[in-house]
Amino acid sequence: MTQTRERVEAWLGAFESALRDRDGERAAGLFAVESFWRDLVAFTWNITTVEGRAGVAALLADRLDDVEPSGFALTEEPAEADEVTEAWLRFETRAGRGTAHLRLRDGRAWTLLTTLRELKGFEERRPQGVEHELRKGRHSWKEEREREQDAVGRTEQPYVVVIGGGQGGIALGARLRRLGVPSLVLDRHDRPGDQWRKRYKSLCLHDPVWYDHLPYLPFPDTWPVFAPKDKIGDWLEMYTRVMEVPYWSRAEVRSATFDAGSRTWRVVVDRDGESVELRPAQLVFATGMSGKPNRPRLPGQDVFRGEQHHSSEHPGPEAYRGKRVVVVGSNNSAFDICGALWEHDADVTMVQRSSTHIVKSASLMDIGLGDLYSDRAVANGVTTDRADMIFASLPYRIMHEFQIPLYERMAERDADFYARLEKAGFRHDWGDDGSGLFMKYLRRGSGYYIDVGAADLVADGRIKLAQGQVDHLTEDAVVLDDGTTLPADLIVYATGYGSMNGWVADIVDRATADRVGKVWGLGSDTTKDPGPWEGEQRNMWKPTQQENLWFHGGNLHQSRHYSLYLALQLKARYEGIPTPVYRLQEVHHPH
Amino acid sequence: MTQTRERVEAWLGAFESALRDRDGERAAGLFAVESFWRDLVAFTWNITTVEGRAGVAALLADRLDDVEPSGFALTEEPAEADEVTEAWLRFETRAGRGTAHLRLRDGRAWTLLTTLRELKGFEERRPQGVEHELRKGRHSWKEEREREQDAVGRTEQPYVVVIGGGQGGIALGARLRRLGVPSLVLDRHDRPGDQWRKRYKSLCLHDPVWYDHLPYLPFPDTWPVFAPKDKIGDWLEMYTRVMEVPYWSRAEVRSATFDAGSRTWRVVVDRDGESVELRPAQLVFATGMSGKPNRPRLPGQDVFRGEQHHSSEHPGPEAYRGKRVVVVGSNNSAFDICGALWEHDADVTMVQRSSTHIVKSASLMDIGLGDLYSDRAVANGVTTDRADMIFASLPYRIMHEFQIPLYERMAERDADFYARLEKAGFRHDWGDDGSGLFMKYLRRGSGYYIDVGAADLVADGRIKLAQGQVDHLTEDAVVLDDGTTLPADLIVYATGYGSMNGWVADIVDRATADRVGKVWGLGSDTTKDPGPWEGEQRNMWKPTQQENLWFHGGNLHQSRHYSLYLALQLKARYEGIPTPVYRLQEVHHPH
Repeated sequence: MTQTRERVEAWLGAFESALRDRDGERAAGLFAVESFWRDLVAFTWNITTVEGRAGVAALLADRLDDVEPSGFALTEEPAEADEVTEAWLRFETRAGRGTAHLRLRDGRAWTLLTTLRELKGFEERRPQGVEHELRKGRHSWKEEREREQDAVGRTEQPYVVVIGGGQGGIALGARLRRLGVPSLVLDRHDRPGDQWRKRYKSLCLHDPVWYDHLPYLPFPDTWPVFAPKDKIGDWLEMYTRVMEVPYWSRAEVRSATFDAGSRTWRVVVDRDGESVELRPAQLVFATGMSGKPNRPRLPGQDVFRGEQHHSSEHPGPEAYRGKRVVVVGSNNSAFDICGALWEHDADVTMVQRSSTHIVKSASLMDIGLGDLYSDRAVANGVTTDRADMIFASLPYRIMHEFQIPLYERMAERDADFYARLEKAGFRHDWGDDGSGLFMKYLRRGSGYYIDVGAADLVADGRIKLAQGQVDHLTEDAVVLDDGTTLPADLIVYATGYGSMNGWVADIVDRATADRVGKVWGLGSDTTKDPGPWEGEQRNMWKPTQQENLWFHGGNLHQSRHYSLYLALQLKARYEGIPTPVYRLQEVHHPH
Repeated sequence: MTQTRERVEAWLGAFESALRDRDGERAAGLFAVESFWRDLVAFTWNITTVEGRAGVAALLADRLDDVEPSGFALTEEPAEADEVTEAWLRFETRAGRGTAHLRLRDGRAWTLLTTLRELKGFEERRPQGVEHELRKGRHSWKEEREREQDAVGRTEQPYVVVIGGGQGGIALGARLRRLGVPSLVLDRHDRPGDQWRKRYKSLCLHDPVWYDHLPYLPFPDTWPVFAPKDKIGDWLEMYTRVMEVPYWSRAEVRSATFDAGSRTWRVVVDRDGESVELRPAQLVFATGMSGKPNRPRLPGQDVFRGEQHHSSEHPGPEAYRGKRVVVVGSNNSAFDICGALWEHDADVTMVQRSSTHIVKSASLMDIGLGDLYSDRAVANGVTTDRADMIFASLPYRIMHEFQIPLYERMAERDADFYARLEKAGFRHDWGDDGSGLFMKYLRRGSGYYIDVGAADLVADGRIKLAQGQVDHLTEDAVVLDDGTTLPADLIVYATGYGSMNGWVADIVDRATADRVGKVWGLGSDTTKDPGPWEGEQRNMWKPTQQENLWFHGGNLHQSRHYSLYLALQLKARYEGIPTPVYRLQEVHHPH
C-alpha cells in the first residue's frame, strides 16, 4: 500500500469510527481549521456548504442519527500533488448510495464533497423491454405510450410539473422518467428545441461539446465542438422523443396556486387553445436564466418610428442590410447580433452602458476549461461525470482564488487583443476581483462575452462603439446622456434578463416571489450579486421557502449535473422517504 | 516484459522483417499449417480469408508491394489461455491505418485478422462547428443544410446512392457523411424507421442492446435490452436527423442502369410522385435480407374467400379476434405472429413445413452471446467495438467448431423444454452439424426461432400445430398434402424472403443479377447454403462482379461493423485512391 493510500485510509478509518459513534465533534476534528464540506443532497436533503470545524460539527449533530452514513471507501488509488491528497470515495446512507471527493492537507480534510447518486430500492437499471412471456391482454410499447399520453393531465395527474421545456426541463424530465416519477414538462413553443431555433440566426454554443452533454445520452464523437442553434434544437427534440420525456408543446402556463390544505398546485395551462388544470404535488420552474427579458423603458419609445425589439426577439440580420442599427448592450447577445448584422452589411453601432469582460474563445477553452472539458481531458481519463464532480468539489467561497491565475494567463496571452480593444474605447474588466468569466456567470449570470470573432470588429471600428446610457429616443435616433445622437432604423435592446423569480411573480403571485427571494447568485457582495453570503446558487435545485416549489436551469453543464440531485429530491418525496432539510436557505432580496 | 509479451514481440519482429524484405514466403512460414488470415479491406481491398501458408504466401506475393505494411505493434498486454496467445495490434499501410487481432499457437499464427480503420489524409475528426471568424457572406449551419437538401439530386449528384433506408442504409449513410462522400439514401416509406413501425405489432428485437448499437451514437444506458419495433423506429428516425444522413423518404427506385462508358449509374426514382434521375458512380443495395418476400403460389389462392397475406404485410392481431388463422411457416415471424394472435383470442394453427431450430432467448443471451454482448461483457472490458473484432477474428471455416459446444450446453439446460416441444409433434433441429442458430443465420439467414414465449404455446397446444406442405386452398380452408383440412378465415404466409439479388433483377436486370450471383451464405454446402466454399458472406460489403455495385445489410451488428469497411472502400474510390481487389469472388448460383 502506498503512503498516500495509507494516509487516506487512516483518515477514512477515523472518520467512519467517529460517525459510527455518532461523535460529530470528533469527526469535525478531522477537518482543517479552514475547511469546506459541500453536500449535494446526501447528508442534508439540501445543496449546501458548511465551513470549518464548527460547521461540520453542527451538520453532523443535526443529521447523523438520521443519515446513518457508512462504508466510506476508496474507489481508486488516491493522488498527491502540491501537498494536497485527492481521493475518490463511495459511501452509503440509510436512504441511498453516494460518491464523494476528498482533499486532505496535512492529514486533515480541506474539502469534502458528498453527493447522493441513487436511492436504495430505486436504483436505475436498464429495462428488459419486451416481456418474454406471452399473455392475453398484453400491451405493446406503442399502445402503452399512447395510453400514457392520453391519460396524463386528464385521468392521471403528474406528481411533478416542470414549467419550461428547454435543455433544463428536458434533462430533468428524462431523469424523472427514468426514476419512475410521473411528470409533465410544459413548453409554449411548437416543438422541443424551438427555444434555440427561434433565436437569432448566428446563435451557437460558446461552450464546447464536452461541457454540454445531456444525461444518459452523450453527444456522439461526430458532434461539433461548438454546435449551432438549429443543430442543438434538433438534438433536444430527438432527445425528448427517445428518452420518452412526457412533454406538452404549445402549452403556456397561465397561473399556478398552491393549495396548502391538499399540498398540491393548481396549474392552469393553455394547451393549444384549450384550458387544462393540472394538480401536481411539485412545481419546478425551468424557465431559463435567460427566459425573462429585461425591457428598458425609455422616453421616446412611443415616438421612435423605426423598429425596436429585445435581443430575444431579434429575427436575424437578413432584413437589415444597409440599415442603421443601434444595439444597446455589450454582452454576449449584443456582440453576436452586432457581428451577424455587420456580416449582412448593416451599419451597426454598439452602445456600451457599463464595463464588460471579454475572453477569447480559444483561450478560455485551453486555459479555463481544458483540464476538465476537452479532448485533452478525456485523454487524461477526465470523463464528463468526473469533470462535473471535480468542478463541484471546489467550494464557491474560494473558487475565485483558483480562477484568478487562469485569467491572468489569458490576459498575458491575449495582451495585444486587449490593448486594441481599449484603444478603440471599449471598457473592459476582469470581474470585481479579477476572477473572470466563470465567477461572473455564477455570481450574476451576465457581464461578459466569449469572443468568437465580433470583438475584433469593435476593436477595428467595423462595428461602431458608443459609450453611455440611453437618455431618450427621437423619431429616428437614439440619444445618449452626453447628447450623442445615433441615427437608427432598428434598435435592439440586448439588455439581458431578469431573475427567474420574476416568473413566479407572474405565474403564482408577488407574495410567493417575495417569500422565495432572489434566484441565482452566491451572495458574494460583488456587482449584481448582493450579500449576505449564501455559498450556493440561491434557490437553485434545492428546497425553497415555498413548499413544493423548485428552480432548475443554468447552462448545459448545470442542467445535466444538478438535474440528478433535483430529481432525487423529487423522487424521495414521491416515494414518501423522509427528507428533513438541513439549513433551508434564508431569503434575501425579495422580488 | 512477460514471456507472453516476448513471444508476441518476437513473432511480430519476424513478421515485420519478412514484410519489409517483401519476402511473402518467409512471412507465410510464421503461420501454422492450419491457419487463417482474414482481411477486412486493409491488405486486399476486399473482404476475404486466405488459408494456410500457401494462402498467406499468395496474398503477400500479390499485395505486398502495393500495401507497404508496417508498424505492427501491440496496443495492450497480450493474454494467454488454453495454449493460445491472443494479441491486439495496430499497423499501417501505404493508404491507411488498421487494427489487427492475432492468435498464436506453438509460436505460430493460427488466426490473424487485419482491418482497415481509416484512410491516411481522411481521418475522421470532430468538426469545430461554427467558424470563429466573422466574414461577410458566411452561411449558418441551417442555411447550408437547406442548400444541400435542395441541391442533392438536382444540381449536385451524389457519388453514392444507397437503395433502402433501414438500419443498414442509415448506418452506411452516416459513415459516408462523416467521411465526406456525397451520398443519398433512398427509401420508399414515409419516414425513417417505418421499416420497423409498419411491421406486425408484436415485433421486437430478439438481439440484445449491446449487439445492436449503430455507429458513432450508442444507445443510452436507459435503452431496453430487447427494444420494441416502434422504439427502434423512433431511434432510426432521430439518428438519421442528428447524424445528418442525406435521405429521401417516399422515394422508390424504378430502375437502375450502369453506363459502362461514363462508369456511372442512371437511377430513376419516383420521389413522391415526381420522376427524378440520379447519376451516382456507386450503387449500394441495402434493401434488406428480409426485404423481398417469398410468396408461395398455391392452387386455390384465387378461390379462397378469406384474407391471405405474407408475414411482412401482416397488420397485427387486433382484427382477428375469434377468427381461424393458419400461419404457414415455423420460423421467427411465424412464432411472433402466432403468439400475438393467440394473445388476441384468435384460433391459430401453425403449419410446419420443415424442421426448425429453436433456442430460448435467455439461454442464447447467456451462453451464446454473453461473453461478447452483455452487461457481463461490458464489465469485463469487452466494449461493442472489441466484441465486433473478436467475433470477426473467428474464421468462418472453423466457426461451427466453437458454436457446437454452446448449443450442446443449451440443449442440456433446456432439455425439458425440447422434450415438451417434440412431444407436441414439433420437428426440431440444431442445424446440419449441430452448430445452432448463429451458423444458420450466416449460412442461410433462416430456419430458426429465438423463443420469447411462443414456443411454449405450441408445446402445450394453445397454438395448434400441423405438419406438412400446403397442397391447395379451398374456399375456406388450407389443405395439406396428407389431406388434412385446416379451416381458415386468414392465411399468413410466414414463408421468408428471397436473396437480395432478386432486387437487382427487378431494378437493374436479370443479366446483372446473374453476373453477381447469390448474395449471402458462406458456401458451406449445408441446407440452403450451397457450395463451393466462399469463406465470407457472398457479395456482402465487398466488390462484386458488377463494377460499382454493392450489397449492404444484415442485422444491426453487421450493419454497424461492416458499414465501416464498405464506407472506406467507397471513400477510397471517391478520392481516387487505387483499390486493386485481391481475389474478387467468383460467381455461383446465378439468379
